[in-house]
Amino acid sequence: MSDYPSLLLENAVNELSRLPGIGKKTALRLALFMLRQEKSRTDSLANSILRMREGIQLCQRCFNISDHDVCSICANPRRDENTLCIVEDMRDVMAVERTAAFNGLYHVLGGVINPIEGIGPNDLTITQLINRLNQEVFQEIILALPATVEGDTTSYYLYRQIKPGKIKITSISKGVAIGDSLEYADEVTLGRSILNRTIFDL
Amino acid sequence: MSDYPSLLLENAVNELSRLPGIGKKTALRLALFMLRQEKSRTDSLANSILRMREGIQLCQRCFNISDHDVCSICANPRRDENTLCIVEDMRDVMAVERTAAFNGLYHVLGGVINPIEGIGPNDLTITQLINRLNQEVFQEIILALPATVEGDTTSYYLYRQIKPGKIKITSISKGVAIGDSLEYADEVTLGRSILNRTIFDL
Repeated sequence: MSDYPSLLLENAVNELSRLPGIGKKTALRLALFMLRQEKSRTDSLANSILRMREGIQLCQRCFNISDHDVCSICANPRRDENTLCIVEDMRDVMAVERTAAFNGLYHVLGGVINPIEGIGPNDLTITQLINRLNQEVFQEIILALPATVEGDTTSYYLYRQIKPGKIKITSISKGVAIGDSLEYADEVTLGRSILNRTIFDL
Repeated sequence: MSDYPSLLLENAVNELSRLPGIGKKTALRLALFMLRQEKSRTDSLANSILRMREGIQLCQRCFNISDHDVCSICANPRRDENTLCIVEDMRDVMAVERTAAFNGLYHVLGGVINPIEGIGPNDLTITQLINRLNQEVFQEIILALPATVEGDTTSYYLYRQIKPGKIKITSISKGVAIGDSLEYADEVTLGRSILNRTIFDL
């Protein structure tokens, strides 16, 4: 006989515990919370998941998550079409958008090259990026990939594929975070921020 | 304009972040995980939640969660109908069942008396318990409520309501956990386990 007094409950707990970071105990706590809530609230949660999985697609141009064929950024005529920012995934688009420091277009790779996890260039939207560069004209491409070995590898691979000379290729700066004291920055970061120092200009 | 590139995604994130212990960042991580999964897996999760909320009810006899009018424990003819174990909620039923040390019936209170949170005797299934004691005959009632002030208050309240003399009322023992050294037990627990010492019998 199963531990659970209800097969329906057991089933929901099993499904919830398949989500990342959610074990059996947390899943049971969530399920009991849903049972205590109004039925309409729980229905609304489940239906929002169903509708999301049904309706969401990738933007045909930049591969960001979108409710339509073309995402709201690509469809916005006020964005600067001369600058392209290449990012790993849609969370990075959200992060860059929050800074309000960038008004160009994006290209979402869907990951970075990671041989250990078996992710190669063909698993990313790199072919689509090259096709896009043949059709659209950009003055600058900003590589905004993670400051990790995999991110740097991917940046280097893209740099070789894009063949500079025709287009200016830049990378986001890496160094001591704003508000941090040098004492607490790790050595690699501090070393790099000394090498990549910029001219101090008032 | 919203942070999210998709209203469907934003809606799912908002719904998920209403669950206890799940903030906006975790909700976004869960939603993106669901988008990467096969559609059938996500449908299965959402439908298990809908079916659970639709189908689950409380056992009419013991108020444990159940798929039917009467739960599988109350419906089991091999359970000892002379002993009743009173617990706070269905998780406690599962915990006691896992010990395999009890074969009687349960009564689930649905909480404990907690004046600070505004939970009084009328918010629990105490009236139903008293009615049950008038209809069913038990030889022993085990109070298995949490070892907290609220649990003790509820035990005392129940003791007064049930009017002992007719029925033997017991409480689960409290003391040093099996496997623990005395050094690490807190003073109150250790003090109580000395006061409630039992005769050592080989």
